This record gives sequence, structure tokens and C-alpha cells, in this order.
Amino acid sequence: MELGPPGGSGPAEPGPRLRGLRGADAAASASSLSRFGAEAGCRAPAVAAVLPAGGSGERMGVPTPKQFCPILERPLISYTLQALERVSWIKDIIVAVTRENMETMKGIIQRYQHKRISLVEAGVTRHRSIFNGLKALAEDQPNCRLSKPEVVIIHDAVRPFVEEDVLLKVVTAAQEHGASGAIRPLVSTVISPSADSCLDHSLERARYRASEMPQAFLFDVIYDAYQQCSDYDLEFGTECLHLALKYSHIKAKLVEGSPDLWKVTYKRDLYAAESIIKERISQKVCVVMDTKEDEEHVGHCLEEMLKTELNHVKVTSGQDLQQIILEQCYNFVCVNVMTSDFEETQRLLNMVEESNLSILYPVVVISVHFLDYESVPLGQKMEKVMQIREFAKEAKKRNILLSGLLIYFPQEIQRDLLH
Amino acid sequence: MELGPPGGSGPAEPGPRLRGLRGADAAASASSLSRFGAEAGCRAPAVAAVLPAGGSGERMGVPTPKQFCPILERPLISYTLQALERVSWIKDIIVAVTRENMETMKGIIQRYQHKRISLVEAGVTRHRSIFNGLKALAEDQPNCRLSKPEVVIIHDAVRPFVEEDVLLKVVTAAQEHGASGAIRPLVSTVISPSADSCLDHSLERARYRASEMPQAFLFDVIYDAYQQCSDYDLEFGTECLHLALKYSHIKAKLVEGSPDLWKVTYKRDLYAAESIIKERISQKVCVVMDTKEDEEHVGHCLEEMLKTELNHVKVTSGQDLQQIILEQCYNFVCVNVMTSDFEETQRLLNMVEESNLSILYPVVVISVHFLDYESVPLGQKMEKVMQIREFAKEAKKRNILLSGLLIYFPQEIQRDLLH
Repeated sequence: MELGPPGGSGPAEPGPRLRGLRGADAAASASSLSRFGAEAGCRAPAVAAVLPAGGSGERMGVPTPKQFCPILERPLISYTLQALERVSWIKDIIVAVTRENMETMKGIIQRYQHKRISLVEAGVTRHRSIFNGLKALAEDQPNCRLSKPEVVIIHDAVRPFVEEDVLLKVVTAAQEHGASGAIRPLVSTVISPSADSCLDHSLERARYRASEMPQAFLFDVIYDAYQQCSDYDLEFGTECLHLALKYSHIKAKLVEGSPDLWKVTYKRDLYAAESIIKERISQKVCVVMDTKEDEEHVGHCLEEMLKTELNHVKVTSGQDLQQIILEQCYNFVCVNVMTSDFEETQRLLNMVEESNLSILYPVVVISVHFLDYESVPLGQKMEKVMQIREFAKEAKKRNILLSGLLIYFPQEIQRDLLH
Repeated sequence: MELGPPGGSGPAEPGPRLRGLRGADAAASASSLSRFGAEAGCRAPAVAAVLPAGGSGERMGVPTPKQFCPILERPLISYTLQALERVSWIKDIIVAVTRENMETMKGIIQRYQHKRISLVEAGVTRHRSIFNGLKALAEDQPNCRLSKPEVVIIHDAVRPFVEEDVLLKVVTAAQEHGASGAIRPLVSTVISPSADSCLDHSLERARYRASEMPQAFLFDVIYDAYQQCSDYDLEFGTECLHLALKYSHIKAKLVEGSPDLWKVTYKRDLYAAESIIKERISQKVCVVMDTKEDEEHVGHCLEEMLKTELNHVKVTSGQDLQQIILEQCYNFVCVNVMTSDFEETQRLLNMVEESNLSILYPVVVISVHFLDYESVPLGQKMEKVMQIREFAKEAKKRNILLSGLLIYFPQEIQRDLLH
């Protein structure tokens, strides 16, 4: 019905921009851009995004505006920014926040190292906030600091799970049609009440859709619409597609979105978002072990066992660790047979630290050591335990939770078990 | 705008029917019924409920139909049944399930001791399932086994958090207007797509509402509508209010519902429901201690400390334990000063066991004992520990998780601390 899927386009799920891994990141983006051209049959446009984030969150029933509500201690809007930032062909991200939340927002940008963000002051209504965002991109405005994009994405700060493929779809459709927006089937029947709160009529559900976000527009189309539109529209309207239709006479192309595009509105939506994020983090584990033959068997056993519990289990001898970290694996088991050295573990810890992975969530590392029970005296065993403790104490300061597992038993049994 | 709130009408949140507490239960119900008459200015009608539960749950993306998806190991539909069962003025609850799920459903009814439930076979569509449910209540049908109610509630199996007050509102409104349904504000703008997936027009969000459940009807109104309605309606329609309007010419009264009425549709909704239930269970604790003076201070300290962490902390000397269990408290701390007897704890365990509380979730009991360190020999201390272990082992069979906390220290210090 709509544009075809962009093939292997990865999800732009919330996650950190990783320091020291620009190479891989840039390569992934380049492939997105080339897909852009190949699939849409047109060149890649300059793209910016505008996020209205001036809402008060009254429906949430909590004093904090919903875009600043913490999910696993990190504000909701930070997840959304991350999702947009990971899409490298979005050049600028304009966030409209109220004056009283400006410092909070700056703090979030600094703390989570968000990039390519510009802040503008939110208006009293959603439409006014978006208009302010567009003004910051328009070259005819005196306060314009950024370059005018060809296409502008409009997204909500409270839809953290937006993926690259749907962003690509709406941008491509906007380039062709002038305007585009994500839609979803209606979950409930929509009805029209009469003045006395009785049913006037109900709509045939199959003929209607819920208009969701993201939406995308040729910049001139939506900016012209906002410049023309009435105060009534700016005060009481919410729908950008409607403005593009009413003032620029553009019929937006509608693109089917995924269920994960839903808007975090009520407290239960925070619970749902938290569970989705937790599941994504906790279902991935990487087993690191060196290439000695002895370990292959242990690694294989561990892999089989972990697979019964977790969705994504990856075993590596370490070469592709950077890529695995880039893909946001937060859980590692480092297996060391016949050695109590922490070399492998230390190498892993360094790489995790070098990336910014643990800024967002704790990274869990379990360092497993199989050691000959008989040849190691008690004092030395205690020393190992203390050493792990020291390592762990240091790692914890950088939000890395390191545990050591020392398995002591006679070498003969160990050899039997390993083969 | 709509009917006023029914005063102190408690939420019909998911929870067990409690055995041995019929007295309190019946009293609560009687008060609901009298409120019914007083507020609506009319007598309490005979009420039944119909739950279509024949859906396949394709939107959930899981093989199990969503009404049977487990939340904390218990199927979703069981929570909804419980919510309806707790409203004693609903005489019969008719559930429409597909033939292949009939045995599963019977198993759920038995396991969670649901009462007043009748099963009918679901139709191919939602409307056909509801019609089958109504036929089971209609006296003109050969297979009618139940008595015809004056008012029938129609609810969804996948809306587990329905409360008594909204049920009362729709039933009262149905008695007066012939039909009534819960509504919610729209979260997204609703748009109408053209044949080529472009925007045709968008609806003004403020003028429309989402039609939710529960709905209620004078039985004759909705049954007549179903008897008249076309095959097209039965196949492709979903909205009962629409049938009442189209065939019985009744304009339903619309009643504002709470956000918790939402329909569990996607996997994220299961997460949200689980978090809501967990929060409800874990935020309530009851501290039981006997009336000796010594304990008052300990109880007070404990209360203050627990209040910093939990929403509902209740301290009792035991008289109102039955009522507290009836209100579904799942966490208990039993404080015993200067005694190692398990009398209090045993009494509590017996009461919990007598109710059916632990059928649904584990009940957590912590038995705390302050004992004179010096006067108790080591052997006797070990004996206490073993005794608690035995108790705990027995309790666990009945889904009661008992922990013992023995605090031994010299009597003088203890006395100092207590005063």
C-alpha cells in the first residue's frame, strides 16, 4: 500500500552515541543514505527534525511533564533524542522547551552527551512550539542560526521508539508528495457525542486511522502553512497534516507505522516503555573467551545454557567486541580457563569505558576463572578475591558492575570436564 | 456532565472472592445496592454481564490469544472476571469462548475459583459472540438456562481494571436511557485516508471520543437490535452502541471512564498491566503486633520507616485483620516482643489460609521476634530457627512465603530501646 520497506534498515532504538566508534557508525549511515537514493529514485535531501517538548503532562497525573519523566532514571526525552541522533542523515534536531525547563533540558543534553541539538523556546500550544522550531531553520528569520533543510521531520518528544525505517519512509514520501505522516489502525471505535452527552453517531472504524508521528514535510510546504495559518489554528489545532492540506493544499502521503510508535501519555505508558527498554537491555549477552582450545567447550556449554533463557547470545573471542558494544550489548561474561589473570577482563573493561555505553545504563561484566584447586594456596585464593573486589570498586565508579566467579577444582577433574 | 460518582464505591480491582468473609462482603454489596436506588432514583435492576472472549490476539504478536496471556502467571481474563465478580449485584457473567479454548477456560474458572460464570460458544466475530451470550440469557431461546436480566453489561475480557463505580454508572444510565457506554478522550487525531493512502481529511479531535467498555443496555433493547441486525453488521461491525441506535433507535448515554479502562491490545499493554498489578500488590503492608505496651513503640518506629517506602502501611493489633485481608493486603509483618511463640503468626497464617488470598499471588509474612540474648541458650536458639523453617516449609505449600527474623540481645538494652 505504502512505500516498500527499506530492506535491512536497522531500528533506531534508544542508545548512546559511541565514542571511538565513528568508523562503523559512519559506514552504517552511508549505507542508509545510498539506500535513500536507490529506493526513492531521488537524491538524499537535507533533513532536520523539530520536536515540540513544551507539554505539561497533565494526563499523566504526575507533576513532572511527561517528556522529563524518568525511565530507568533517564528522562524520556533523552531516549527520543538518541533515537533521532542515531540516524546520521538527520543534520539538526530542534527541540522546543518552555523557558522554565530550558536549564533542565540543557542538563540532559550535557549528561547524556546528545549531539546536533538546538533549543528554541516553546510556545503556549503545540502548533506554536513547532512554528518556533521551524523559524529557527528558516532563512528569512533574523534569529535563524541553522541552514534551511529541504525536508523537516516533526516528531513527538514522548515517542521514544521511533525507528530509522519509518523516518526514512516519511522523509522519502514527503520529498515526493510534499507531506507525509505515520498512521496506525484505530484501537477503539470513534464516536461523536451530542451536546447532552448522548451518542450522535459512530464512525466506521475501518475507514479511519489514527494519525501518529513522525511526520515529514518539504520545509517550504509546512513553513508556508504555518505562516498563513490563523490564530484559531495555532491555539486549538494539533495536526500538522491538516495545516499542510488547508493552507498549502498538499494531501499528505500516509505511511503505516509500527505499534512501538505509540505516544507515552498515561502512567501505564511509562511502565510499558520501561519494560520494553529493560527487555531490550537484558535479553542480550556476550560471552568473551580466548581462543585456547580448552575454552571452546566451556564457551559452547555456556552458550547453550544461556540460550534457553535469553534471546540474543553471542560468543566471541574478542575481535568483534567493538561492533558488539556498538550494537548496545550491556551484559558480558568473560571466561578464563587455567588463568587468574584479568587481562581479558581488563581489555573488555577498557573498551566498555572508552565507548560511552555505561553513561546510559549499568554494564554488567562477570569475569569467570577456572583455577587448579590444589596448586593454589589459600592465601593466594584470598588475594584473588580481594583483587576482584578492587577491580569491581573501580569499575563501579564508571557504572560498570563487575562480578568475579573463581571456580577452583583439581586440574584432572577440570580437564575431564572440559573435554 | 454525566451521573455523579457513587460516593465511597470502592474500586472493583482484580482480586479474589474471599472464603469465610461472606459477612463483610455481603454488607458491602448491600450498601452498593442501596446507593443504586438512592442515587438513580429507581430500584436496583437485575443485572447480568456478557464478555466476548473469542479473539485470536493477532495484534499482540504472540500465539496465545491475548485474553489468555499470563500476567504474573495468571491469565488476563481471570483478572477481568474477578473485577466483575467482586460486584455482587451482577448476578450472572456469560463468557463467550471458542470451542478450542473451552477446556482452557474451564480450567481457569476452577483454578481461580470464579463464581457465577456461564460459558457459551463464541461466534466467528465479536458481534456474533455477544449475540450468543445474549441468547443464553433470553427466555425465548430453547437453550436458555439463565433468567433474563433487566440490564445487561457488555465488557471486554481484555480490560481487567474495570471498577465498580463505572459499572454502576453505565447500568444506571442504561436503566434510564436504554443504552450507555464508557468513553475516553482521543489520544491521537483521527484521519480519513483516500483510496491511494493519502490524507482525505482529519477530524477535529475535540468533537470526537473513543468508545470504550463497559457498555450497558436494557436487555430488550440490545437483544432486539441483535435479532434485527444484518449479516453485514454481524460480520464487520464491532460497536454495540451503533446497533442500539440503528435498530432500536436508542441514543446511548455516554459516561466518562478512567484511563485504566484501556484495552490490552499490544504486548506493551501486558507490560503495563503487569506493572499496575505489581504496584498495587507491593505497595500495601500490614504490621501486626499484640497490644502489650512494649510493642507500641516498636510498631510505631516500623510504621514510620515503612511509610517512607510504601504507599499503604497499616498497623493493627489484630482485630481488623479479616477486613485487611478482604481488602487484599499481600504483605504482613508480625512483631513479637519478648516471646518466641508463634501464636500471633500462626493465627495470621490461619486467617490468610482460610481466605483464598494466596490462590492468586504469594502472600509474604515476616515474623519478627525480639528475644533476650542471655537467657536463651544456644541450643534453644537453633531450635527456634529450625521451627521457623518448618513453619515456612508448610506455609509455602499454600503459597505463603514466611520468613522469620529472630533478634536476640540483652533484656536491659532491649528495654532501653523500647522506651
